[in-house]
Amino acid sequence: MLRLSTFPFKTLKTQPKVSDNRSTSILLQWGYIRQCMAWAYEFLPMGHKVLRNIENIIREEMDNAGYHEMLMTILTPRELWETTSRWDIPEYFKVPGWGNSEYRIAPTNEENVTNIFREFIQSYKDLPTCVYHIQKKFRNEKRAKSGLLRGREFIMKDAYSFHANIEDFEVFYEDIKKVYMRVFDRLGIGADTVIADADGGAISDKNSHEFQTFLTIGEDIIVQDSSGYSYNLELASGIADTKNTDEAKKPMEYIDTTADIVTMEKMAEYFHAPLWQCLKTVIYKTDSGKFFSIVIRGDLDVNEIKVTKFIARKYGEWFTQATEEDLIQLGTVRGFATPIRDARLPIENYGDESLMSAHNYFGGSNALAKSTKNVNIEDLDIIEFAEFNEPIEGFTSRNVPGELLTFRRACEVGNIFHLGEKYSKPFGLSFSDENNETVSRVEMGCYGIGVSRLMGVLAEYFMTDTGIAWPESVAPADYYIIVIGEDNIERAMTLAKELESQGKSVILDDRMGGKYGFWQKAADCDLWGIPNRIVISPKTLEKWGYELKKRTEIEGKLINF
Amino acid sequence: MLRLSTFPFKTLKTQPKVSDNRSTSILLQWGYIRQCMAWAYEFLPMGHKVLRNIENIIREEMDNAGYHEMLMTILTPRELWETTSRWDIPEYFKVPGWGNSEYRIAPTNEENVTNIFREFIQSYKDLPTCVYHIQKKFRNEKRAKSGLLRGREFIMKDAYSFHANIEDFEVFYEDIKKVYMRVFDRLGIGADTVIADADGGAISDKNSHEFQTFLTIGEDIIVQDSSGYSYNLELASGIADTKNTDEAKKPMEYIDTTADIVTMEKMAEYFHAPLWQCLKTVIYKTDSGKFFSIVIRGDLDVNEIKVTKFIARKYGEWFTQATEEDLIQLGTVRGFATPIRDARLPIENYGDESLMSAHNYFGGSNALAKSTKNVNIEDLDIIEFAEFNEPIEGFTSRNVPGELLTFRRACEVGNIFHLGEKYSKPFGLSFSDENNETVSRVEMGCYGIGVSRLMGVLAEYFMTDTGIAWPESVAPADYYIIVIGEDNIERAMTLAKELESQGKSVILDDRMGGKYGFWQKAADCDLWGIPNRIVISPKTLEKWGYELKKRTEIEGKLINF
Repeated sequence: MLRLSTFPFKTLKTQPKVSDNRSTSILLQWGYIRQCMAWAYEFLPMGHKVLRNIENIIREEMDNAGYHEMLMTILTPRELWETTSRWDIPEYFKVPGWGNSEYRIAPTNEENVTNIFREFIQSYKDLPTCVYHIQKKFRNEKRAKSGLLRGREFIMKDAYSFHANIEDFEVFYEDIKKVYMRVFDRLGIGADTVIADADGGAISDKNSHEFQTFLTIGEDIIVQDSSGYSYNLELASGIADTKNTDEAKKPMEYIDTTADIVTMEKMAEYFHAPLWQCLKTVIYKTDSGKFFSIVIRGDLDVNEIKVTKFIARKYGEWFTQATEEDLIQLGTVRGFATPIRDARLPIENYGDESLMSAHNYFGGSNALAKSTKNVNIEDLDIIEFAEFNEPIEGFTSRNVPGELLTFRRACEVGNIFHLGEKYSKPFGLSFSDENNETVSRVEMGCYGIGVSRLMGVLAEYFMTDTGIAWPESVAPADYYIIVIGEDNIERAMTLAKELESQGKSVILDDRMGGKYGFWQKAADCDLWGIPNRIVISPKTLEKWGYELKKRTEIEGKLINF
Repeated sequence: MLRLSTFPFKTLKTQPKVSDNRSTSILLQWGYIRQCMAWAYEFLPMGHKVLRNIENIIREEMDNAGYHEMLMTILTPRELWETTSRWDIPEYFKVPGWGNSEYRIAPTNEENVTNIFREFIQSYKDLPTCVYHIQKKFRNEKRAKSGLLRGREFIMKDAYSFHANIEDFEVFYEDIKKVYMRVFDRLGIGADTVIADADGGAISDKNSHEFQTFLTIGEDIIVQDSSGYSYNLELASGIADTKNTDEAKKPMEYIDTTADIVTMEKMAEYFHAPLWQCLKTVIYKTDSGKFFSIVIRGDLDVNEIKVTKFIARKYGEWFTQATEEDLIQLGTVRGFATPIRDARLPIENYGDESLMSAHNYFGGSNALAKSTKNVNIEDLDIIEFAEFNEPIEGFTSRNVPGELLTFRRACEVGNIFHLGEKYSKPFGLSFSDENNETVSRVEMGCYGIGVSRLMGVLAEYFMTDTGIAWPESVAPADYYIIVIGEDNIERAMTLAKELESQGKSVILDDRMGGKYGFWQKAADCDLWGIPNRIVISPKTLEKWGYELKKRTEIEGKLINF
């Protein structure tokens, strides 16, 4: 039992403004956490209790699913990261040891776990298997942000699975989705948590998902329609809203403008035209020096993930944006680049399909202070159209014709993805199959839940005007006993011990003296979000009982001892 | 329930020889742990279960005592360590961040906790208080050793207490000794764990204790007598055994010897004399350049902790051993230094009290290849006698006259010590007392238990020929069910679920096929040290029951369903 009379972690009168989100400020104010330095938090006792409750729910569901908990190291040798060519990632810390030795404090443990399983996977009978651990992770973030939601030091549950083939992986992948949803249900955020398709990087598009909880402070945007379509904006796809396509196409004209209309906004302002009517041309250079452009409606952003995939297929190369020098060499100028046939550049132009949704664009001419108006598809030298845009409000669904896509801010609480043989191959995993033949491809998957991040998400999600109304499953205690009158502490302690013997956790507010009247104590109970409030006072004792009130109730009721 | 049929962490047929102690080899062989790199261990599922059980016992006892659990950061800013002038300690890791920023991965958390309590200690009413956390710690050990017992990465429970005055601290200090002993009792090592006085460094002699568990692989030696005296060898004190004091003192003589008798052993061999009859003279130089010597019986070692304390009182200075150049400058030579009056050096000589226990010593003459024999106290220029030795077998107790001291190897499992204001002062802690006056001295104490180290200690302590007989409190599971016959797995699972509903943990050995007969399974049960073994086989089912055997019993008994 936690007796508040000897509890030193007082709440603050004012909200510290050290964080960029409300829940972290509240967690600071109410003594759940403290900042050790920017983006590294100390969990004070109340915060630690919430954290452990979150952890235990995750642990129980993982254990019930038959996954094995273990504990890998934080300090890892350089060689482990060189095996997978991940040593030189600037966001991962390097730690010098004696002599020339170098270590890494692990940001993730694919290398550890694959190295361990090199020994334990020998036969097809050892597969599939899944292990997990709950431990602190470290990222050398240049500028971390969002309080508990992203930090240099954070607690993760990370799980790793190993499979004899892709079919087996896919069955497992569907199972772990259900395990994750059970976790989020028990944490009370299941109804507002969706499974969104996410970018799987080079390995997999199909098997990469994020668990996203709708929250206005979320860093991500989830795009959905009523068919169940649910994608992270970075991957989302929709049909661009048509603009002035009923307008007749006019012949292209050159016009003298000014040198400073080098952004879409300035261009739109200069022409008194909407953003969408301005043509955006972004020029890129591949690693081998080829140039290409993406042409898109001025109100839309080029989604570089989509471009990357398209170009990888096309040229098999990586690329970066062209420099101003590159542009001059190509014969154009920043702000005035255009793919019009009349002023053709020696590059390949690709058009976003949104271009079809409007007519008579304003654009550049590849010469300074010279623009074009009434530019139409026919005027452009575009060799292929594809989807390069990031959908915006107004786009419609590809699954439900005419239905507007919805866009909601969300916070990522978990992710699951296919690793394929990205790690198992460099570590040389293999096993012998039913016919005793060696199979040298082991499929892996990787599954994360942000434990300390979840504490921030829950705080934000369950925030009320009087405190954080933690769900019972994670509240710092089950019961909060307010005792009025020094003489009644003994009686309250007896009740607390009774509750504890039933496996309940109890905070005993036995603070006495001037400012600790009933209302102060009741306010603190709400503030800490304890689900059940008990009052033991001369009044209740007169009736040989105590008052019990659930947080969700307005009136308490008398319970006899 | 852990089903072994799908458990990939097989045991090894042979014992890996990667560690310098038997228990770590065994823990490796039986799949409890793996080495990620030298002295950093991965805890595989079985090891993780043991670790968590140890952790939970510590947590329960700390919570019962009213101490508050929290969780401090691992990554800490350089400034925190500069506040206490502990940034430049080579055994503590430094971690470069972006730009010039530097962090430390914490080897201990005095700085964190004191920094946090700067805010929370305001009034005498906030004191005393004690917090703890259980977390990994990191030390940049040059050459770690002893497997799990000492590592670069290890798990510690560290607690910190704050007090308004020394009397309050002392009351608390006695209480936490009892809490610690309850922990060690529950872990099954209480009977062989003693509280030994240890070196408190500069802060405190009186309030610095180690909890030492007797083990032959221990790194420490505990010196005891029957009065309850229990000291770490580094601090122990006894009465030197008398040697030839009944022999008549003879006049000192110079003798020509050889240049190579520069160690005690060579000297003893040359003179065909016992080691104790050779005089050892160690010359030191203080930081300000003063020289002094410690003169001691040749079979004893100078204990530098005792010398440090003596010299600190005498000169208020630190010191190091004199170099060969220093010796030449002083007019002597390595191996032949002596404090005899006849060849007086310009230094102050201090004699260990053990010198009185013998007569007629062999010694040097401050000249190369020239020695002395029949040297007696009267021949020496010693300005003060004190205790500078480390006792050895044969020394007797100071408390029980004539009783021989005992010397036993032990392994440190916990330590507690007074920090005084070492940390509270640089962090500027203060509080207002009953009269509302500011008190700027806050007493602190610090209390550690080595969690991962305890796993190694328990493994070593409970080792048997057939496995580690873990006590029930930490065993990886309560029950091990051996099921014979594929058809009976269902029945065994029902029983396992029943046991789990009673809060018991179960390993189900449902492995089938050739090598997994009864004896193999029974051996694995012993090897993993599970306290209760259940057998479900056609034979037991015939009698409508199962066989239950405790590890300590030879015969099991039939229990009906």
